[in-house]
Amino acid sequence: MESRTLGIMDAILRQLRDILSEINALEGASHVLTWDQFTYMPTSGASARGRQASALKRVIHEKSTSADLGKLLDAAANFLPQMDPDSDDASLIRVARRDFERASRVPDDFVERFSSHTSVSYMAWAEARAADDFSVVAPFLQRSIDLSREYSGFFPGAAHVADPLIEHSDPGMSVATIGPLFGELHRGLLPIVRDIAARSQPEDGFLYHHYPKKRQIDFGAMVARRFGYDFERGRQDMALHPFSITLGVDDVRITTRVKEDDLWEGLSSTLHEAGHGMYEQGIDVMLDGTPLASGASSGVHESQSRLWENLVARSLPFWECFFPLLQKQFPESLQGVSVDAFYRAINRVEPTFIRTDSDEVTYNLHVMLRFDLEVQLLEGKLSVHDLPEAWNERMHQDLGVCPESPNYGVLQDVHWYCDHVGGAFQGYTLGNLMSAQFFAAALRDHPEISAEMALGRFNLLHGWLTRKIYRHGRKFSDDKLVLRATGQPLTVTPFLDYLKNKYSALYGLAANA
Amino acid sequence: MESRTLGIMDAILRQLRDILSEINALEGASHVLTWDQFTYMPTSGASARGRQASALKRVIHEKSTSADLGKLLDAAANFLPQMDPDSDDASLIRVARRDFERASRVPDDFVERFSSHTSVSYMAWAEARAADDFSVVAPFLQRSIDLSREYSGFFPGAAHVADPLIEHSDPGMSVATIGPLFGELHRGLLPIVRDIAARSQPEDGFLYHHYPKKRQIDFGAMVARRFGYDFERGRQDMALHPFSITLGVDDVRITTRVKEDDLWEGLSSTLHEAGHGMYEQGIDVMLDGTPLASGASSGVHESQSRLWENLVARSLPFWECFFPLLQKQFPESLQGVSVDAFYRAINRVEPTFIRTDSDEVTYNLHVMLRFDLEVQLLEGKLSVHDLPEAWNERMHQDLGVCPESPNYGVLQDVHWYCDHVGGAFQGYTLGNLMSAQFFAAALRDHPEISAEMALGRFNLLHGWLTRKIYRHGRKFSDDKLVLRATGQPLTVTPFLDYLKNKYSALYGLAANA
Repeated sequence: MESRTLGIMDAILRQLRDILSEINALEGASHVLTWDQFTYMPTSGASARGRQASALKRVIHEKSTSADLGKLLDAAANFLPQMDPDSDDASLIRVARRDFERASRVPDDFVERFSSHTSVSYMAWAEARAADDFSVVAPFLQRSIDLSREYSGFFPGAAHVADPLIEHSDPGMSVATIGPLFGELHRGLLPIVRDIAARSQPEDGFLYHHYPKKRQIDFGAMVARRFGYDFERGRQDMALHPFSITLGVDDVRITTRVKEDDLWEGLSSTLHEAGHGMYEQGIDVMLDGTPLASGASSGVHESQSRLWENLVARSLPFWECFFPLLQKQFPESLQGVSVDAFYRAINRVEPTFIRTDSDEVTYNLHVMLRFDLEVQLLEGKLSVHDLPEAWNERMHQDLGVCPESPNYGVLQDVHWYCDHVGGAFQGYTLGNLMSAQFFAAALRDHPEISAEMALGRFNLLHGWLTRKIYRHGRKFSDDKLVLRATGQPLTVTPFLDYLKNKYSALYGLAANA
Repeated sequence: MESRTLGIMDAILRQLRDILSEINALEGASHVLTWDQFTYMPTSGASARGRQASALKRVIHEKSTSADLGKLLDAAANFLPQMDPDSDDASLIRVARRDFERASRVPDDFVERFSSHTSVSYMAWAEARAADDFSVVAPFLQRSIDLSREYSGFFPGAAHVADPLIEHSDPGMSVATIGPLFGELHRGLLPIVRDIAARSQPEDGFLYHHYPKKRQIDFGAMVARRFGYDFERGRQDMALHPFSITLGVDDVRITTRVKEDDLWEGLSSTLHEAGHGMYEQGIDVMLDGTPLASGASSGVHESQSRLWENLVARSLPFWECFFPLLQKQFPESLQGVSVDAFYRAINRVEPTFIRTDSDEVTYNLHVMLRFDLEVQLLEGKLSVHDLPEAWNERMHQDLGVCPESPNYGVLQDVHWYCDHVGGAFQGYTLGNLMSAQFFAAALRDHPEISAEMALGRFNLLHGWLTRKIYRHGRKFSDDKLVLRATGQPLTVTPFLDYLKNKYSALYGLAANA
């Protein structure tokens, strides 16, 4: 570019960064409110907090859809053809435009209507749960579906009614891209599940002994620190439903919960959230204050939590190092247990009704069930009335178990009752697929990762993830990020290979069944 | 009013309430950020938090000075002559107008300049403290004085350069009203201080034994709860510099600090903040979401913290009930101590260099010294260069002690170095005066309060304060509030009488010396 053009571009980018940085600061402020709400806020503070969060959201929405911002983005976009598409600036313009268009397409009155509806729908869900009765919430769910279809209508170019909802959490993904992946995964998982069902189960009773809270928290924090979660730039608190959240580039917090009669629950939750936290702590400081300073998508985010929770913390090399330390922490319960027995116990595969309690193998069947049903609900091919039966039938087909009541089935997850129907679940499974593909690529680049892990060190792995994924924030779409990091598009092969190898050994299955 | 006029007024008030309620919600959000910053935020989060708080402040300032709001307030003010001046609506219009005018008079560029200056000035103060060297921060203090004078200039009707700064914290107060009060107080205090200095001191060494943290916190929280602080609508956390803050009408939080080798430090700080907290918890819910839902002034706020901290928790009836409980909590240190010895120890009067460590009697001499010096600095009658000497000389005159170095004198409080010079100190002493006047009036209305207190009950006192002070929020100016609650304008007599009676008994002084 000639110098005059460069000067104009610089001026436009500077103005753009100023506006985006203010929006980013206000979003950070709203994350402070969220963190407090789910950690320390007294229950009675909920109503004021609701008003504060809404007021802040309205300000953010106004600023995110202002005509000034739109003009600057249009002006900046003119320079895109001359820019390196992978540069920070080009990515900023691209992502900020996408955010702007998305925010601008949804009318304010819809946002208000939808927000009022989800408040009452959430309360109806809580009532339905208390009564274990789906009919209490059914009309609200119907309205959520109608509103989700209306939302989808604001994006007229979409190939499928669910696509704008999916795109919201996982940019670049659609029914057309997810359908084949999930189909192949489903076909690959069923034989493994059936094969395991015929085998004898490892003993895991010792996981449910008494594990004092404080010692669990200390152990989990110690492992998270070793992984690379930086407690100097974050903190860990207790929450009913654990989450991680970014209050600032150097203030990325995680939460966990601990049950004294379930060792794996608290530990896995800590390490899962530490994975999310490390992702955001690893974002390049050059992206600070911009909309790029965040995780790329729900799928990529989940790939990081699941990679550390499962591929690392459910592996044998990991426990070869850490089991003696865990034993020292809980001698009463673990003294006579071998590392091998412990490894088998935490990897026990057993169909359950509840997604969040399920193991690595069956987990994605729960997710795909939800994904398929919500697509059918949005298409109008499945009615709300028939949903519980469709749910139970599919559970029975895939997992051989049938929920005893709605609380164990269609009422178990809050997602459909407090947000759009559509788009909230696929990220869990996309994340699992990515986690295995990323881990395999990291192992290809650094075969010594397993040996390092057995010494309780994670520098190579953490460094690889930082270089390939963390530091880029939202710069790249999922497909591009996966391709750049692993050299291949997203496939189910690494994940299925991982499960087959691991569980063949654990359950003595025929190799590559 | 005729019905058409009433209809218009209703419509205007409704619009006004909507705008004010949004501003109130955003202010609540900014309090969440502040609370987090001083309780749990990791140090590394400071820079992002600074940006978030500034962005939010800018939004609040824009909305608080918008032309729409100004027009509505003007329109609403037309109805004031026909309204009951003590009604919620009339008070809302009056107070909102005052806030609007105050916010509108100060130009945005001044706010930015002042805010940048206080950041660097605060850092210079921290350096000066580390070096115990006033000259490091002197030029910054000079600039603060210049900026404070400039600020004062935005309010051209003021009788004294310090008045707009005083008015900011204590509406309705001025050099002309405070001067005579402080003069009389000063004349009344000096003979008491001198008289006590000639007497023998009670033993208080046991206050500095080892008092385990957790047990101190439990005891303080128990007393705060008995006072009437509602933990269901608030919470208590640790902070380096204790404060109380309202995150919502039903979410009023307090903080404290605890030293294991100083029993009174933590307990008095807890009960002081509980006083502030009860005040805001007691505001009428009808004022929720309006600018009236807050304490009336820094003086009235301090009157509530000091009333509970001193007039209640430093009284003999109180300890007759609670000392046995305290002894049970700390038997190692308090077993052989009598309630009378304990009462004498926590009321020991001894001049010190440090305001925050000082007793009930000498405390206000510290405050008045600062008030007088800042008035002289603003008037230009005292130069920054001569300030340390003026400080030391006055300390010597009033308290008979001379600070060994700037850290014990002119550098001890952060106020002048992080905010305006002027207006930050008078509230402490006004609060002490009010606390005694309120307490005396409550005792006149309910002579049984002392007997109730000796039974560990505070319903009568808490109820009186709620009716007379808490529930009104910012509805009334200080003078009106004091007059309504006590039947008299603010005077020094109740406070001096309280000190004379109490300390004559404690130190065996000639009654009414």
